[in-house]
Amino acid sequence: MEIELRLVPENKRRPVPELKNLIFGRLFTEHMFVMEYDCNRGWHSARIEPYGAITLDPAAIVLHYAQTIFEGLKAYFGVDGKIRLFRPWENMRRLNRSAERLCMPKIDEDFVLEAIKKLILIDRAWIPREKGAALYIRPFMFGTEPSLGVKPSHSYLLIVILSPVSAYYQEGFNPVKIYVTDEFVRAAPGGTGEVKAGGNYAASLKAAEVAKSKGYTQVLWLDAVERRYVEEVGTMNIFFYFEDELVTPALSGSILPGITRDSVIKLARHWGLPVSERRVSIEEVIEGAASGRLKECFGTGTAAVISPVGVLCYQGQEYLINRGETGPLARRLFDELTAIQYGEKEDPFGWTVVLG
Amino acid sequence: MEIELRLVPENKRRPVPELKNLIFGRLFTEHMFVMEYDCNRGWHSARIEPYGAITLDPAAIVLHYAQTIFEGLKAYFGVDGKIRLFRPWENMRRLNRSAERLCMPKIDEDFVLEAIKKLILIDRAWIPREKGAALYIRPFMFGTEPSLGVKPSHSYLLIVILSPVSAYYQEGFNPVKIYVTDEFVRAAPGGTGEVKAGGNYAASLKAAEVAKSKGYTQVLWLDAVERRYVEEVGTMNIFFYFEDELVTPALSGSILPGITRDSVIKLARHWGLPVSERRVSIEEVIEGAASGRLKECFGTGTAAVISPVGVLCYQGQEYLINRGETGPLARRLFDELTAIQYGEKEDPFGWTVVLG
Repeated sequence: MEIELRLVPENKRRPVPELKNLIFGRLFTEHMFVMEYDCNRGWHSARIEPYGAITLDPAAIVLHYAQTIFEGLKAYFGVDGKIRLFRPWENMRRLNRSAERLCMPKIDEDFVLEAIKKLILIDRAWIPREKGAALYIRPFMFGTEPSLGVKPSHSYLLIVILSPVSAYYQEGFNPVKIYVTDEFVRAAPGGTGEVKAGGNYAASLKAAEVAKSKGYTQVLWLDAVERRYVEEVGTMNIFFYFEDELVTPALSGSILPGITRDSVIKLARHWGLPVSERRVSIEEVIEGAASGRLKECFGTGTAAVISPVGVLCYQGQEYLINRGETGPLARRLFDELTAIQYGEKEDPFGWTVVLG
Repeated sequence: MEIELRLVPENKRRPVPELKNLIFGRLFTEHMFVMEYDCNRGWHSARIEPYGAITLDPAAIVLHYAQTIFEGLKAYFGVDGKIRLFRPWENMRRLNRSAERLCMPKIDEDFVLEAIKKLILIDRAWIPREKGAALYIRPFMFGTEPSLGVKPSHSYLLIVILSPVSAYYQEGFNPVKIYVTDEFVRAAPGGTGEVKAGGNYAASLKAAEVAKSKGYTQVLWLDAVERRYVEEVGTMNIFFYFEDELVTPALSGSILPGITRDSVIKLARHWGLPVSERRVSIEEVIEGAASGRLKECFGTGTAAVISPVGVLCYQGQEYLINRGETGPLARRLFDELTAIQYGEKEDPFGWTVVLG
């Protein structure tokens, strides 16, 4: 399939605004990639066109039954002037796993990745150049069929939009305070927690609101069955550094297999640190925080890379981790991963893709 | 707030097609109700306008994080020529409970119900006149803010569309075969199962697909924690008639509080039948089917009213209920509820609202 180019004429392009102090996900570039699907024709009408409103029938399935999935990755402007993506094929694979879970059509991973690269190069002037800032890439796919029957849509749109984002840590690499919810559940085994279904995120809003109202930045989610085992923090995976063992919850079926999570596991193992993917109970975490056996705790995700946790609140009691400070392992992982992403250090894993 | 009328001129209206053999939720009437919300102005711009496409920014929250909720009810053309709604204020209340759970703004229930009545009267020519057929009413609300941050939208649309639907039972009031899934879970306590969040429905598609591929019409859902207690069937509530006790799963936090469910409970109690809302294990159901203690089983919902279950498949084994036939209680409930809805019988509960 060819990608049709319907670009904004050079002399009509918007001037790129100053790419500083950006609120995440509010500013978008000049173009987007769009591809359509229907049961008869399959994927078709791939094109790069001006960013702009889409029209939907009010009965479109996505508006009623939330048949929608997405991905998130970034393009980094390197210290060598090269643009890099970080393990983008993992996002393409996960998009297809999400599609499978929500009964949506598969995409050609290579084709969509090539389309994303093309789109980025067209809007390359929108990539911020400071370390820490990046161009956030949002592929998403949703059902468009105007039908109120509860069944998979016969037609879909896949769209990729781009948003310049500032460095996540504008005021230093500071730990956050997190709130363990025993009221809300993010996902159950047999549900959609291990894919990037839109519904997971709508379901998480209320717990985040409660945590914020109590003065915490993120929610720590426990498992749906025993309400005892740690699953994720906010929209990130979570790691605990117990003495000489780095631990993250095993992918039980309700945890998102994060790409930063996997990168942290591989990097720590590469450094010779023992890493376990296993169950971690909230009691183990709290006892570890009290005894000092828990040396560090941090979230991992595309937005923050590493997000150190300094305080944890469980059943009305606050627990300090590493005296509320960022630990050396969190810092080392953050420095190493960002150094690879921005081309400052060699990439021994073959994780980065240089564009153009 | 006033409702602005932007109606299709009489001489430009589409002729109403023959309202027969309609596929559920594919045909829509001439107009829709629309109302907008933003954080500064609250709800505003209420209007009835021609049914037609809506435009959304590609970054609209609903397309990414599924912040969307809906309701479903029907307008019935009565044997006396009057148009009736069935307990519509319950739908308005539930819409507000759904909104609360997904951090969305509350609606003025009376105002929206009046708007729905006005819309129906404008498009009254689209209400099918046969018994069993009806005008399906779909209110829905979703976040429209163009922002990729995971947080509640600052702006919303509430829309009501109308769809003429044929009788659910065109080939007789026949029992369905259902498949007990032990692979998939609909909702967990602490999740969104007890409200009409779009994400619940996207998450259910895969299990329905598996059931259909095995030759069954619906999925029977078990609880997320023990995978043992019955929750719902497809998108309906479920009832079991054990000897002289009618049983339905108690509202545990992951079950939708259906309006037909509540009506069946009240009607059966009115008839002097003992009704229990309690836990029902799949073992109790299967043993009951085998021993004959389980006399009937049926689903309840707005679309079907009552949907008898004749066969149940659990762990590869099929169980017949009432020899695979529709039982007298299911039939009596169906007849009584539809008689009230179509104005054939007195409404002792004050459930119906006559329009106009």
